Amino acid sequence: MSSQPRIAIDAMGGDEGVRVMMAGVALARRRHEGLRFTLFGDEARIKSALVNHPNLRAASEIVHAPDVVDAGDKPSVAIRKKTSSMSMAIAAVKAGDCGAAVSSGNTGALMAMAKLALRTMKGVDRPALAAMLPTLGDNDVVMLDLGANTECDARNLVQFAVMGAAYARIALDLERPRVRLMNIGTEEMKGTEEIRDAAAILRAATSLPLSFDGFTEGDKIGRGDVDVIVSDGFSGNVALKTAEGTARFVTDLLRTAFTSSIRSKLGFLISKPAMHLLRHHLDPNNHNGAVFLGLNGVVVKSHGSANDKGVANAVHVAARLLEEDITRRIAADMHGIEGLTAPASRMELPAK
Amino acid sequence: MSSQPRIAIDAMGGDEGVRVMMAGVALARRRHEGLRFTLFGDEARIKSALVNHPNLRAASEIVHAPDVVDAGDKPSVAIRKKTSSMSMAIAAVKAGDCGAAVSSGNTGALMAMAKLALRTMKGVDRPALAAMLPTLGDNDVVMLDLGANTECDARNLVQFAVMGAAYARIALDLERPRVRLMNIGTEEMKGTEEIRDAAAILRAATSLPLSFDGFTEGDKIGRGDVDVIVSDGFSGNVALKTAEGTARFVTDLLRTAFTSSIRSKLGFLISKPAMHLLRHHLDPNNHNGAVFLGLNGVVVKSHGSANDKGVANAVHVAARLLEEDITRRIAADMHGIEGLTAPASRMELPAK
Repeated sequence: MSSQPRIAIDAMGGDEGVRVMMAGVALARRRHEGLRFTLFGDEARIKSALVNHPNLRAASEIVHAPDVVDAGDKPSVAIRKKTSSMSMAIAAVKAGDCGAAVSSGNTGALMAMAKLALRTMKGVDRPALAAMLPTLGDNDVVMLDLGANTECDARNLVQFAVMGAAYARIALDLERPRVRLMNIGTEEMKGTEEIRDAAAILRAATSLPLSFDGFTEGDKIGRGDVDVIVSDGFSGNVALKTAEGTARFVTDLLRTAFTSSIRSKLGFLISKPAMHLLRHHLDPNNHNGAVFLGLNGVVVKSHGSANDKGVANAVHVAARLLEEDITRRIAADMHGIEGLTAPASRMELPAK
Repeated sequence: MSSQPRIAIDAMGGDEGVRVMMAGVALARRRHEGLRFTLFGDEARIKSALVNHPNLRAASEIVHAPDVVDAGDKPSVAIRKKTSSMSMAIAAVKAGDCGAAVSSGNTGALMAMAKLALRTMKGVDRPALAAMLPTLGDNDVVMLDLGANTECDARNLVQFAVMGAAYARIALDLERPRVRLMNIGTEEMKGTEEIRDAAAILRAATSLPLSFDGFTEGDKIGRGDVDVIVSDGFSGNVALKTAEGTARFVTDLLRTAFTSSIRSKLGFLISKPAMHLLRHHLDPNNHNGAVFLGLNGVVVKSHGSANDKGVANAVHVAARLLEEDITRRIAADMHGIEGLTAPASRMELPAK
């Protein structure tokens, strides 16, 4: 890696096109003056989009990528597109030319490529997908895994807890993040054997830079009393999407209610600032940037429909993790759980 | 069972006490004139609560139950309380004196008792917990399993689909409910092997009175384009609680936003009818009553914090399922999937 941190940008992914990607990266650059970028994609379109962003242009190198991963490409098809902007961005991280990559493209393809090219880091069995969700408290909450692994054993869950805590320490600036395992009740005997075993291991791992607080449930995600929520990728994905869908559902209902009568419409106009505040808090762009944790290199997925502010957020996440060297931090923390397994006595508990 | 349908009521469960239970049952009775009730609990308190409800009193029998299942009782403790109002209500269904039981008490205890006393019906491996959720469409959506089974195989999921469809036919008055399996993507290769196998079986079972429409995701629960959503009890419970928590989260944000300035407060006052409409739609009392499907008898769980309208809803659910003989219907439908298993070819698919 060069002396200055450099981020590989897949300029072609995303529903909104090169222009929004470039506008977003330009926004992020303002927060990270020392950052350099390598922009992968159609050279002519990138150059044209950069006309409005001379500062980004000055901090960037453009590398032409003749191919593009499509939204509908299966991962098995996408990984064979070696000259796609996504492949080349990941390859730049693998080669050490860049410390991190950001893409708004096909999630499954990005996950498969990143895993294949960068490999899982030493001490980690499986990478996980992590993101931030808004809460009613002062801080956001880190949730993982959000879909990289449909089934997880206790060891996977423990590693996710360590990786998620490392992420929270950097992104939320916390010393000892409060970590909980997602479960369907908070009593000790609840949930699957994997979850109970993971809880036993985490309870025993007192030297880790995190505070393990037991279980949490789906209705407490946004309460603000926990910093990291750990689950298998299936229920994490269900929880994330259900939260997104329900927030949209309620705001849709609200819109219908507010247009149901002239009186309601008037009330809406008057309370517009309040509605604006609500929308701001729920705007996914403010939480954009899902991170693949546990790889030899930082890879951030920006939402396909993110606007410039959203893309800037994803790039900011990549920059922070790169500056704070999350990979090294996770590696160090993994020593703290080496050799720890669930106490044998727990195996005697009934399976449900 | 006597000639008139009779429902066993656990008068003691619930945070709101005997008075609210009795008020709710009285409300429900008005919708079901022919219904009779047996009320289990503290005789003096029941009698005192019935003073205001002479019509319910005339339609009811009171059976004194000296013991109560506490909210904190583990199922293993609760099932030993043979003279609790909950135990006695379930026993009345087992004996055939009542066709259904309704309780607002401890869910885990109720589930354990019902399973133990009533046994799983022929053709069903495991009972499931089902409930209705609001949607933006014309109808509510039935979701199951919501927590009775933390891990499920393909056969369980298929049986849940059949039971959920039988419930939707009765409660939503549909001929061929649209059924989907909860997954983390809608493509055929997504999810666990259990889910993909269940999909293959349901796709093959074309004679069933349901329309199997493939997979759905957490963000589409409230969209109104599906009548029954089937999942294992772990992710179903996570989804249900996340939906509840997010709805509360958004309305809490709204409240904060509306009280943030005098202008917002004024807007709130003017748009009160709109907010009232929203609250009405999201009020859990309008969807109260979770059903244990797959037992030899109807058991409905009312939410502990339900008000009289909520309790009335739960009793109404029990009455409808009893009138329409859901147990017999499920038994008939189960014939339609007998002998069906996942095609062997599917086993060759990669596990993730």
